Amino acid sequence: MTFSLVAYLEERRATVDAALDRVLPPESAPPTNIHRSMRYSVLAPGKRLRPILVIAGAEAVGGRADDVLDTACALELIHAYSLIHDDLPAMDDDDYRRGRLTNHKVFGEAMAILAGDALLTLAFRLVAGNAARVAGPAIVGAVVTEVADAAGTDGMVGGQVVDIESEGKTISPEMLDYIHLHKTAALIRSALRVGALLAGARAEQVEAISRAGQALGLAFQIVDDILDVEGSLAELGKSAGSDERKKKATYPSLHGLPASKQRARDLIEETKRLLIPLGPAADPIRALADFVFERRS
Amino acid sequence: MTFSLVAYLEERRATVDAALDRVLPPESAPPTNIHRSMRYSVLAPGKRLRPILVIAGAEAVGGRADDVLDTACALELIHAYSLIHDDLPAMDDDDYRRGRLTNHKVFGEAMAILAGDALLTLAFRLVAGNAARVAGPAIVGAVVTEVADAAGTDGMVGGQVVDIESEGKTISPEMLDYIHLHKTAALIRSALRVGALLAGARAEQVEAISRAGQALGLAFQIVDDILDVEGSLAELGKSAGSDERKKKATYPSLHGLPASKQRARDLIEETKRLLIPLGPAADPIRALADFVFERRS
Repeated sequence: MTFSLVAYLEERRATVDAALDRVLPPESAPPTNIHRSMRYSVLAPGKRLRPILVIAGAEAVGGRADDVLDTACALELIHAYSLIHDDLPAMDDDDYRRGRLTNHKVFGEAMAILAGDALLTLAFRLVAGNAARVAGPAIVGAVVTEVADAAGTDGMVGGQVVDIESEGKTISPEMLDYIHLHKTAALIRSALRVGALLAGARAEQVEAISRAGQALGLAFQIVDDILDVEGSLAELGKSAGSDERKKKATYPSLHGLPASKQRARDLIEETKRLLIPLGPAADPIRALADFVFERRS
Repeated sequence: MTFSLVAYLEERRATVDAALDRVLPPESAPPTNIHRSMRYSVLAPGKRLRPILVIAGAEAVGGRADDVLDTACALELIHAYSLIHDDLPAMDDDDYRRGRLTNHKVFGEAMAILAGDALLTLAFRLVAGNAARVAGPAIVGAVVTEVADAAGTDGMVGGQVVDIESEGKTISPEMLDYIHLHKTAALIRSALRVGALLAGARAEQVEAISRAGQALGLAFQIVDDILDVEGSLAELGKSAGSDERKKKATYPSLHGLPASKQRARDLIEETKRLLIPLGPAADPIRALADFVFERRS
């Protein structure tokens, strides 16, 4: 029997969506506006790639989805907060994301800033609570530290800083790799790692999953860059070429489209090679890697 | 021998300042601009009330300052992040805070948003790491949950949302209490609570400290409101009457100055009464309560 990616993704996405609805404060709870704002962005239709990677990271070392579900949600909240803040007028100044108005266009800038802050706060509550239920204090500390490092100035926020500072400038391939590795790959790598850590992975398993996660995260961002050049509004929910209009360096703008596609393909192969020691338990991660490469939006 | 508040505060403030310098990324570490921005706001001269309350909360139940120092720093980082975001043009739009340019006036809005995000992220890293070193998983989970609740939409962010939504409107005394209790008192109460929790406090000790912290936090905000009416630029570092200019409801604007002063005095007495069961170990908290009432800025 072969592993069915479509069925796996669909089932996991439904599980994650239900869990997100559960962990977010209800719209009826005061202060209602911020809860509406948080739910508007988090519950927008999405791939749920990061949460599913948390689950796949746990499964790859024998863990169960239920035991990491709150942490899976937490990674999606961090992703959502970063998009809300990135879209703000002071940052990328985007009015639309995936065909919907951005958070600050609906709820105002003040509420968008606070909703992002609240999502980040709730994320850490979920990670720590989840870890405390299933693991000892050392793992709880390690998991929260892992997420904080991936989200902070050594990770996602650091990548965003350099991205913003590089706009309109000529940057080196090394600098572009820095931005991609920090802004995007850090959280994707971390999603796999925390899943594995919570499921009690051995050190060498965590190491293999980390390296695979880094390759996968970089591939994801390169594919994103390619889609920005090739995609259409319908597929991507934002105008194609928006990076170019913002004078953002991308993988295709520095290396050309053919080399970018080859690099993404190589990174997906590298991801799979790094997962060999984990055996068939890592099939969901392998399938997610194919999904990242083949996705159209 | 009587407890010397001046010496205690001075010593604790120096300890906290040294610890803050240690836990913040150095300015030389890339990306340097965000680390400069984070340090600019956190290391600005301040009372360090929240960190000292974490320490005093631990000491009140027999704990040691060294064992809660990273968590003490974390509460100051959360306080600093909230000020950076509150000062943004989309929020309170303040150019000065305590006589210095606000973060976004020095580093720009994008960096100020990201510096706040990074400080909140680092805070949770510190809390979880600290708790994992000194306590079991249940306490680690409880402490992170406590801080997240105090900082999120059930606490500080919730208070800020209602504060912003109430600007220019007539609000009820109950609504003003809601804002004060959430925007300010929640984090002050939480500072005492996490100190006590990390030091292994018994349930009834945590309960007494919680109630005292809530009274103290409310007193602190009422005194702040009074100082905004009475203070001068020199004492407060911002123009007196700034709340009135922004059409923010304050305790004095709803209840008058004499009733506000009486209410603050009553809350300080209530704080001390609630601390009676803790005996002399709570002397630092009592002294901090006097300090809150007598402070001039």
